[in-house]
Amino acid sequence: MDPMLPGFDDLETRPPEVREAALMSALVSQVAWARSKTAYYEEVLQGVEPSAIASRGALARLPLTRKGALIELQRARPPFGGLTATPPEGLLNLYLSPGPIADPRGAGEDWWRFARALFAAGFRAGDRVLNAFSYHHTPAGAMFESAAHRLRCAVYPGGTGQTASQVEAITRFQLNAYTGTPDFLQIILDKARETNANVSSMTKALVTGGALLPTMRERYRDQGIDALQCYGTADIGLIAYESPARAGMIVDEHVIVEIVRPGTGDPVPDGEVGEVVVTTLNRDYPLIRFATGDLSAMLPGHSPCGRTAPRIRGFLGRADQTTKVKGMFVHPEQVARVAREFPDIAKARLVVSSSEGRDRMVLKCEASAVLDLEAIAGSIERHCRLRGSAEQVAPGTLPNDGKVIEDTRES
Amino acid sequence: MDPMLPGFDDLETRPPEVREAALMSALVSQVAWARSKTAYYEEVLQGVEPSAIASRGALARLPLTRKGALIELQRARPPFGGLTATPPEGLLNLYLSPGPIADPRGAGEDWWRFARALFAAGFRAGDRVLNAFSYHHTPAGAMFESAAHRLRCAVYPGGTGQTASQVEAITRFQLNAYTGTPDFLQIILDKARETNANVSSMTKALVTGGALLPTMRERYRDQGIDALQCYGTADIGLIAYESPARAGMIVDEHVIVEIVRPGTGDPVPDGEVGEVVVTTLNRDYPLIRFATGDLSAMLPGHSPCGRTAPRIRGFLGRADQTTKVKGMFVHPEQVARVAREFPDIAKARLVVSSSEGRDRMVLKCEASAVLDLEAIAGSIERHCRLRGSAEQVAPGTLPNDGKVIEDTRES
Repeated sequence: MDPMLPGFDDLETRPPEVREAALMSALVSQVAWARSKTAYYEEVLQGVEPSAIASRGALARLPLTRKGALIELQRARPPFGGLTATPPEGLLNLYLSPGPIADPRGAGEDWWRFARALFAAGFRAGDRVLNAFSYHHTPAGAMFESAAHRLRCAVYPGGTGQTASQVEAITRFQLNAYTGTPDFLQIILDKARETNANVSSMTKALVTGGALLPTMRERYRDQGIDALQCYGTADIGLIAYESPARAGMIVDEHVIVEIVRPGTGDPVPDGEVGEVVVTTLNRDYPLIRFATGDLSAMLPGHSPCGRTAPRIRGFLGRADQTTKVKGMFVHPEQVARVAREFPDIAKARLVVSSSEGRDRMVLKCEASAVLDLEAIAGSIERHCRLRGSAEQVAPGTLPNDGKVIEDTRES
Repeated sequence: MDPMLPGFDDLETRPPEVREAALMSALVSQVAWARSKTAYYEEVLQGVEPSAIASRGALARLPLTRKGALIELQRARPPFGGLTATPPEGLLNLYLSPGPIADPRGAGEDWWRFARALFAAGFRAGDRVLNAFSYHHTPAGAMFESAAHRLRCAVYPGGTGQTASQVEAITRFQLNAYTGTPDFLQIILDKARETNANVSSMTKALVTGGALLPTMRERYRDQGIDALQCYGTADIGLIAYESPARAGMIVDEHVIVEIVRPGTGDPVPDGEVGEVVVTTLNRDYPLIRFATGDLSAMLPGHSPCGRTAPRIRGFLGRADQTTKVKGMFVHPEQVARVAREFPDIAKARLVVSSSEGRDRMVLKCEASAVLDLEAIAGSIERHCRLRGSAEQVAPGTLPNDGKVIEDTRES
């Protein structure tokens, strides 16, 4: 089969409106599930009528659950903050990701759904995969192993170190596929060259957990390896993946992705950079409007490979732009509160600078009408407990990089 | 259920003769399978009529496959030396154990059969297991994870390092069971004490890969942890396991264990220390008379816990006693060749000593008749290409420690 073509299942080539209807129907059921099966959502979604959450507009009015808040939620209600519907006794695995944040793994094949991404990267039954993610403490190793098993690939669990052993494994088993971080594969290939080991069996890779720069991808291609990337988190599993079209990251069929203004739950216009917010359809760990803290943007249109799901641009930075000014924290949420008081403001960006040792804050605003800059300055002082000025800029002037707070001071 | 009682399945309490009949019938079928499905056994068992291998006596006449020989066999016919019946494409995982020796993992739940050992150690559905074996390169981590999953336990994959994270995991998830090496659990408990972490949730352990000394077991009991041990290898999986009776290691229901004189394939009398030789009933990797290189001995009678399978004493040392005398290697196989030339010799032990800087070899022999010591000395020189003398000792004089070569020189 031409790996350019979709084919993991029929979901990928559904007409977009069919997918959207299926997702919105699943959303209603998932909101009901989360409300009735988890202590956390029973509180957070109190009064929410699940049948009313049948559109993206309705979804956008539900509260976010921030990844950064999980640590405190889990501390208060161990081990999973009351967010899991399945008791620990019903889980296959327990993990601690950096934070440390507790992550569950439920029962069932390919629980994190990475098989779809592997398939798009050309992985097929009979492939022999070097899995160079860690299996210890965090779920990354198991995520890719369980996905490869779903596709009936044999997996060599290499983990993240012992480069010489990774080379030995490639040659002994003629491993032909790699999963791991983008840079570690090159370290392995360099070690192979150094030791005159023939690792030419290796022809494809699916990477994540770091940037796959275009030059890096090119370099892998020169070494006979086709590298694609995907995007996911320890909490959610797969969020989006590249196809051989290499035209953005295609959203997984079992999540609903929104892009919101950092510090708010408000979706940005299509194409604008904002925070990735994900609602999963997973029944063990139903996350509704989970704010990942990552920046991305929707891409217009569809992938030329034939997959019809929405696409995002991939990881564009971190959404948490909290900074310290004159010893006080300034959060994106505070900037959002100021902007909300002035409906004419279409987009705002707090620029923090320093001159002659003194910090200065200016809120640059795009608006459709003339703004009352003094009133805005008053609002800044009220919400941030710091003095700042406001400045109106022409629409389209502020860069599309998801930044709500720009810190231009030397760090 | 009282964990003292058997109960993982009905096999454990079969009348011994029922088990033996079932194993001998399975053996016939396994020999046929190995001969017809693997290139290696097609050669090694050439001319062997499977239906004739229906008794331990017949099995004892088949050739051994030594663990030490796997490296060369695998080098000649990669990756598995022609010993696997399932092609790499049909395997779930590929591993490299120290050697490095390639190990397969076939499809199916609990492929290495450690669930029986976990059950005997009191592991039950709903337990939360800290698995402190490595998941990388070698199969140990996956062996115990897949066994725990079979019992519906949730597993925290801790691996072999990061002690502080292991403590954090125990407290966060209230982990109550441990799998790993015998000593690492104490390191974790010490770290917990040092950091005032409450790890009292931990109450049971199944350990392997090192000696669980009686003092160590006692110390764990004083800390509220019931520790049992088991014995297995990366090639075979589970070989034997302790039950709460703590009366030897009970042989797994799906292997046939023989104890042979080191350097030979000849079974020793019951109770005598010798090399553990295992025949597995596994269809992916059918090992017939696999010589593990480990020493043990059969225990008479049955475990008081009610399990009726044969028992062994556990790991008693390494069978490979190859040593160097005057710059030449002397192998147990050479000693066996000498002894075979003199049917009156019941037991022999080559003692290598050194006096005034000169190495000396004496073959001590137990025999039922008077031996021709000069003829034996000639045989030693012929088989070892080294001079040595022979000495007849009274029956029962030689220690029961499995040693065919005893090296008394200071190393």
